[in-house]
Amino acid sequence: MQPRHFGLAVPPATGLCSQRTNDIILGMTEDGVKEKTQSNVYKAFIGEAKAYFRLLAYAEKAEEEEMPQIAHLFRAIAEAERVHATRHMGLMKEIVVKDTDTNLELSFQREKSISENAYPNFLSDAEQEGETTAALAFSQARDAESYHAKLYERAIMNLLKNKVKAYHVCQVCGYVTDKKQPAKCPVCGAPKEKFKSIAGE
Amino acid sequence: MQPRHFGLAVPPATGLCSQRTNDIILGMTEDGVKEKTQSNVYKAFIGEAKAYFRLLAYAEKAEEEEMPQIAHLFRAIAEAERVHATRHMGLMKEIVVKDTDTNLELSFQREKSISENAYPNFLSDAEQEGETTAALAFSQARDAESYHAKLYERAIMNLLKNKVKAYHVCQVCGYVTDKKQPAKCPVCGAPKEKFKSIAGE
Repeated sequence: MQPRHFGLAVPPATGLCSQRTNDIILGMTEDGVKEKTQSNVYKAFIGEAKAYFRLLAYAEKAEEEEMPQIAHLFRAIAEAERVHATRHMGLMKEIVVKDTDTNLELSFQREKSISENAYPNFLSDAEQEGETTAALAFSQARDAESYHAKLYERAIMNLLKNKVKAYHVCQVCGYVTDKKQPAKCPVCGAPKEKFKSIAGE
Repeated sequence: MQPRHFGLAVPPATGLCSQRTNDIILGMTEDGVKEKTQSNVYKAFIGEAKAYFRLLAYAEKAEEEEMPQIAHLFRAIAEAERVHATRHMGLMKEIVVKDTDTNLELSFQREKSISENAYPNFLSDAEQEGETTAALAFSQARDAESYHAKLYERAIMNLLKNKVKAYHVCQVCGYVTDKKQPAKCPVCGAPKEKFKSIAGE
């Protein structure tokens, strides 16, 4: 299976960019979806995805302010926005759920591609532009994705099947490990309090 | 507070669309972030958001295939991609977490705006283009968002504070209720088995 590019990073032909209209014949995009609708599905996906992540951040804030019921409301509506985002992604033909072995292989290839190509390029641009905050975010994301690739690789090699462990996810940089929770994140240096454990079934 | 547009639906000036370069002076965007980096942050957000929703779909598939450990791995890495997406959104200045009362008000205004403006426009385009699958998704999302607005409105009126209830979220159309779980979704007609209950603390 060939490595795939960071896929969804570049917007599809949306009609917003006139230089892309050469790709479109009689208002029909290459996916066979009419142009305006393809653009709208993409916009709707972005809006729902942002709503989802924003509502989870609002829920955390509500918890800090000791308003558990409002936190709960934000989480429930976030879940609904996840349903919408996933449905719109299906219309964009971006979610193609195959068998699990294939999904693992695709996930491994995507992580390799974004840690070896997309994020290093983003990092280089940020460094050239002197955008140090973005550079740090890209650099740490690149390193975290490279650890994700290793976890997928081990799963593909059947080392994980039928063993249920806890995963520890750094809430600053997205590093994930299935080993003992580290005292300090090896990617960003965050202390152990910044880790969230995702327990198995 | 003024209603806000579907905010994140329209990509920011990214350099992909030449007609937007008039907005950009000396490679600096209106947010004060250099142009290439702003575009890269946006692309990185989209890539991470899509990875997040895709991995959750892969986790469900792995569960169906009775591979709980792989499902668990997909969920843990999804959580890491959520961390990345949220961090990139912060760089886009899209997550501005204020106090909970303000967050509720903003969420109410956003839901009103997307159910009364964005989705009706998307629906009208889809109907004109004969895209019936997208039209149904937009129509049901519009109705679900309008129910979300009502839930926020009640929260703002203090009817929810300090009462912990279960919310029921339709996994087909994103309808949410804090009442008894309906036998059939009032928006899309899905049976009660399609509801996910989000329990309080």
